[in-house]
Amino acid sequence: MEEEGVDNRVVKRLDSERDPNQKNRQRFGSRSGVLSIEEFFEDQEVPSWRKQLTFRAFFVSFWLSILFSFIVMKLNLTTGIIPSLNVSAGLLGFFFVKSWTKFLERSGLLKQPFTRQENTVIQTCVVASSGIAFSGGFGTYLFGMSERIAHKASGSRDFKDPSLGWMIGFLFVVSFLGLFSVVPLRKIMVIDFKLTYPSGTATAHLINSFHTPRGAALAKKQVRLLGRFFSVSFLWGFFQWFFTSADGCGFAHFPTFGLKAYANKFYFDFSATYIGVGMICPHIINVSVLVGGIISWGIMWPLIEEKRGQWYSEKLRSDDLSGLEGYKVFIAIAIILGDGLYNFFKVLTRTLSGLFDQLQRRRESEDFSMENSSSSELSYDDARRKQLFLKDQIPIWFAVGGYVVIAVVSMNTLPHIFPQLKWYYILVIYIFAPVLAFCNAYGCGLTDWSLASTYGKLAIFTIGAWAGPSRGGIIAGLSACGVMMNIVSTASDLTQDFKTGYLTLASPRSMFVSQVVGTTMGCIISPCVFWLFYKAFDDLGLPTGEYPAPNAVLFRNMSVLGVEGASSLPKNCLTLCYIFFATSILINLIKDLIPKKWARFIPLPMAMAIPFYIGPYFAIDMSLGSLILFVWQKLNKTKAEAFGPAVASGLICGDGIWTLPNSILALVGVKPPICMKFLSRSANTRVDKFLGS
Amino acid sequence: MEEEGVDNRVVKRLDSERDPNQKNRQRFGSRSGVLSIEEFFEDQEVPSWRKQLTFRAFFVSFWLSILFSFIVMKLNLTTGIIPSLNVSAGLLGFFFVKSWTKFLERSGLLKQPFTRQENTVIQTCVVASSGIAFSGGFGTYLFGMSERIAHKASGSRDFKDPSLGWMIGFLFVVSFLGLFSVVPLRKIMVIDFKLTYPSGTATAHLINSFHTPRGAALAKKQVRLLGRFFSVSFLWGFFQWFFTSADGCGFAHFPTFGLKAYANKFYFDFSATYIGVGMICPHIINVSVLVGGIISWGIMWPLIEEKRGQWYSEKLRSDDLSGLEGYKVFIAIAIILGDGLYNFFKVLTRTLSGLFDQLQRRRESEDFSMENSSSSELSYDDARRKQLFLKDQIPIWFAVGGYVVIAVVSMNTLPHIFPQLKWYYILVIYIFAPVLAFCNAYGCGLTDWSLASTYGKLAIFTIGAWAGPSRGGIIAGLSACGVMMNIVSTASDLTQDFKTGYLTLASPRSMFVSQVVGTTMGCIISPCVFWLFYKAFDDLGLPTGEYPAPNAVLFRNMSVLGVEGASSLPKNCLTLCYIFFATSILINLIKDLIPKKWARFIPLPMAMAIPFYIGPYFAIDMSLGSLILFVWQKLNKTKAEAFGPAVASGLICGDGIWTLPNSILALVGVKPPICMKFLSRSANTRVDKFLGS
Repeated sequence: MEEEGVDNRVVKRLDSERDPNQKNRQRFGSRSGVLSIEEFFEDQEVPSWRKQLTFRAFFVSFWLSILFSFIVMKLNLTTGIIPSLNVSAGLLGFFFVKSWTKFLERSGLLKQPFTRQENTVIQTCVVASSGIAFSGGFGTYLFGMSERIAHKASGSRDFKDPSLGWMIGFLFVVSFLGLFSVVPLRKIMVIDFKLTYPSGTATAHLINSFHTPRGAALAKKQVRLLGRFFSVSFLWGFFQWFFTSADGCGFAHFPTFGLKAYANKFYFDFSATYIGVGMICPHIINVSVLVGGIISWGIMWPLIEEKRGQWYSEKLRSDDLSGLEGYKVFIAIAIILGDGLYNFFKVLTRTLSGLFDQLQRRRESEDFSMENSSSSELSYDDARRKQLFLKDQIPIWFAVGGYVVIAVVSMNTLPHIFPQLKWYYILVIYIFAPVLAFCNAYGCGLTDWSLASTYGKLAIFTIGAWAGPSRGGIIAGLSACGVMMNIVSTASDLTQDFKTGYLTLASPRSMFVSQVVGTTMGCIISPCVFWLFYKAFDDLGLPTGEYPAPNAVLFRNMSVLGVEGASSLPKNCLTLCYIFFATSILINLIKDLIPKKWARFIPLPMAMAIPFYIGPYFAIDMSLGSLILFVWQKLNKTKAEAFGPAVASGLICGDGIWTLPNSILALVGVKPPICMKFLSRSANTRVDKFLGS
Repeated sequence: MEEEGVDNRVVKRLDSERDPNQKNRQRFGSRSGVLSIEEFFEDQEVPSWRKQLTFRAFFVSFWLSILFSFIVMKLNLTTGIIPSLNVSAGLLGFFFVKSWTKFLERSGLLKQPFTRQENTVIQTCVVASSGIAFSGGFGTYLFGMSERIAHKASGSRDFKDPSLGWMIGFLFVVSFLGLFSVVPLRKIMVIDFKLTYPSGTATAHLINSFHTPRGAALAKKQVRLLGRFFSVSFLWGFFQWFFTSADGCGFAHFPTFGLKAYANKFYFDFSATYIGVGMICPHIINVSVLVGGIISWGIMWPLIEEKRGQWYSEKLRSDDLSGLEGYKVFIAIAIILGDGLYNFFKVLTRTLSGLFDQLQRRRESEDFSMENSSSSELSYDDARRKQLFLKDQIPIWFAVGGYVVIAVVSMNTLPHIFPQLKWYYILVIYIFAPVLAFCNAYGCGLTDWSLASTYGKLAIFTIGAWAGPSRGGIIAGLSACGVMMNIVSTASDLTQDFKTGYLTLASPRSMFVSQVVGTTMGCIISPCVFWLFYKAFDDLGLPTGEYPAPNAVLFRNMSVLGVEGASSLPKNCLTLCYIFFATSILINLIKDLIPKKWARFIPLPMAMAIPFYIGPYFAIDMSLGSLILFVWQKLNKTKAEAFGPAVASGLICGDGIWTLPNSILALVGVKPPICMKFLSRSANTRVDKFLGS
């Protein structure tokens, strides 16, 4: 138990500096570290694993999966910053099934009460499904292959446009591998190593709390608040829509701080989503994003723009990578790589040393087995959890067999989808994958930090360089990234889920089935949602549009960099990249070395990099969200902590689901009637004259 | 005491149907009809009348007068609907002097504590001063004489443009008459007739409550809330300013319900002022305004516009009174006249019958004097109030002398200002004025309803018709209206003040001095504020602009109607006017005849008439304010009643005072940098092409 205390400290520190590219799992519930929760539930029978898998659970999961796929997709394509949606998923799942059972109970038709195991099944299914909206790479590698992004990036001859067929096929082939690779390890991670998995633990606490009378009452209030802000946010999105008849129209282009600030992307764009995101993300992430925006768009880009004609040609189009755009893209990449690499080595070191400690302790515990086993026998909760966790086994041969079968299938099919991705690249990936998946799952259990996208970037550079420019290295690299990311990401996500299941007494078998169902849903829902966005919004991927998809551009350019080298960059760009790469590592190092008291005020390079490319406008929203939460916390800390996440979830979900009707309207060709335009006084005078004549 | 009960019932009914052209005096405090308030204050010494008049009181009054003159002027020039600002004046006056005395108390320099008498002096002074911003006619008769309005109205050869000099002179000559005409009557009204004066009583209760410990604590909270909303409203006004670089730009032209609705003036114009006004006005007034807007701009005007070419020439300019504009103006006038006339006769009847009752009871009480006097002796409060009210007398000869002197002076000076206004017209007005002033003061005491503008309209028609078209009847009528309105309006306002003074033990002498000082301030401040508006905003009086000054147009056209008859009206307009005139009377009649339970759902014609001319956009704001208050009342009635007026006052005051920097910016030629424009999709496409080329 001792190392859990240590881990908890580590987690708390990392809690405020998580990779913003990853799902920021929730802190909620972590304070309620009550010891004997199982005694409370003692008189409640745990249903058999088959009974935990109800139709209503999957029905609710299906609709929530669609909801969250929309939200994650929207976030993917606007900034790539995805906060934890676990609380909203938990609240909504609980709300829907609870209403359902209550309704049935009143009409006397209820056969089976709503248990926390069933709740965990829903949560697992939704997380597995909406996780694919992230790891499917619609905002990163997959969309980065498209012609639209290729035109923006250099190396534009190599592309593969999205199409519903191959996207679904690709996801089916790669998404289940992670699942099988992790199944044999779950006992080691959860029971033997007793890893924390802070997010999984927090989710379990949340679910457990829902099923106590007091927790249910709180949840009811939270759901009501969530619903209210959901409606407000949805209606606000709907209202905004009417004023966006063309590009540059509407509230999303409101020059709140004047036209000059707007030209440098400093404005408040009235996005309910990012106000909510700002409320969920730790304050330091919001500050980081804002600082990054000020450094880049406030200081650096205006200065570099003055060198126009000296550092780069004046004749270039504004989005040409040989001009200012190149500085934006490659400096952002440099920061992300620096931060990613630093943390990769940090987590790897910690993983290995943690692993070493564990093994050593195991050996010791074998010597003093009596003492140790008795101490673990002492806790009622742990004993009961362990008993139920080990009851329903999943045979090893099933897991290994599944992995081999899928690996063979994908080696045969993937080269048909991406001719540039040879079968032996895939073989190499699949040989290393289980190890990397284990590393990521273990690191995540220790630090709550999934490094999936870092592993993905690793694949971009290695496979891309292996294939080389002549044999389509760009697509090869990006697709390899996809294969790698999916395995590694699902591995850590699903081990988290097992931890949740362990703490809520859900059977591993029902969890596994729920994950399979959720992954299947995700493989179909996510591409469809992306397809809707892709068809509905012509400006998807354009930096000036509503959906700039910044990570798609960044990922593609990483691939280009890996394959073709840094020859085409504008003057001094490479030097600046080196400086920012080094600074990014340095900041991380300082953050780790100085006392925690001060370290928490140091911004995170990864978060700072996003506004370097797309501009600081969303940082204004997020800072506003942060400010609202901050003031609320000052006024009433208890209330803010209990209801802040619900308000934020409402804002995010309402605006997110508005994108469904929004994209359908765009698809069927219904255009908004009005343009809310912002003109300078002189331009307005000319326009008035023009309209008058 | 019996008839007070009756009066109270009458008042409560009328309370929800006050003339919106008048100041809607506040209901606040009327519930706190505690009997022995004076016992509570027993140990507090009442300062002598000289000591009630402190420098600090007049200093605070001066600044508050400026604040409220701006607010009243803004309301005058936008819609002419002026809600009660007594609570805000009371709160702010209390707040400033209290802060002042607290500061002095801490530094040990306080010579004299802040008493409720001093508070009454401030209140009286501010009411007298800002009352002139209304009765000075800057939104009605006085501005109606100007060339700008004359061009809009028919009969455009007769005009007199505003100028600071003659406006101040005119006000000085006419504003003090009402004061002197009412002084001899105050004992009869307040002590003998025991008239209620609901607003004066409410103000007194408010002031009394401020000086109890519990009341002071509540006031502190209210002031804090007022201050917060003041800031929000001010900053919102400031923020809006940046986006209004030209006509038709900015939030005030936001087509909230679409462009088609906007063309018919249905939109939410984001005005904090009118949201606040909606929160203060009774719900039925807001509903009336909205209903009036829907009937006129939603149904009638679109229908009449279809008759274009049949009922009126197609070639007319849109603001020509022979076209659609004529229907708007004259139907509104018909409704206002119908309502005004009905209420004139109603209040007159009630005044006369009340007077008759009073006289009869006096005669009876002379017979049974012992019984009656003993019953009045019984109440401690009344006895003490009467004693102090009668202590400081103002001699009759002083009042009569003052009246005669001012009358002579004005008969000699006014014809120099308005050559059309002959000295014998003035003499006639001055002979009848004291009777009318008495009637209005008495009626107001009975019903809380000042009919000043109705008496003014009476003067327009009588003097206008007497002078006739050949001898400048339009200006003669309008200026006669001014003379009449000032006398009659000050008479009722100041008797209200005496009632307040009576209930707070303020000396009549100090009240009188305060009124003289306040009137003097008003005679200088109001014209200056109007002058600022007049010079700063070129679109003052234009129906499409920010300040349409609807009543100025309506008053001028009444005068034209009275002098020249209805010959130039477009086809069927007169018929429609008759119908609406009759309907207006009918609605009032129904409202008075059916049970109160239903009557309160019947809208008020007077309130319905305003949107007939300027459009229903401000009705949307007011309805929103009404809705906010309604929901608040449903959620927490006590809080809504205690803090609703403070929030509303904050919204009104903040936006009102923003007009000061706004007009100064306009005067010195600083123009906003941005235009927030709303274009239809097709227009936007053309504009984008134009700007792109």
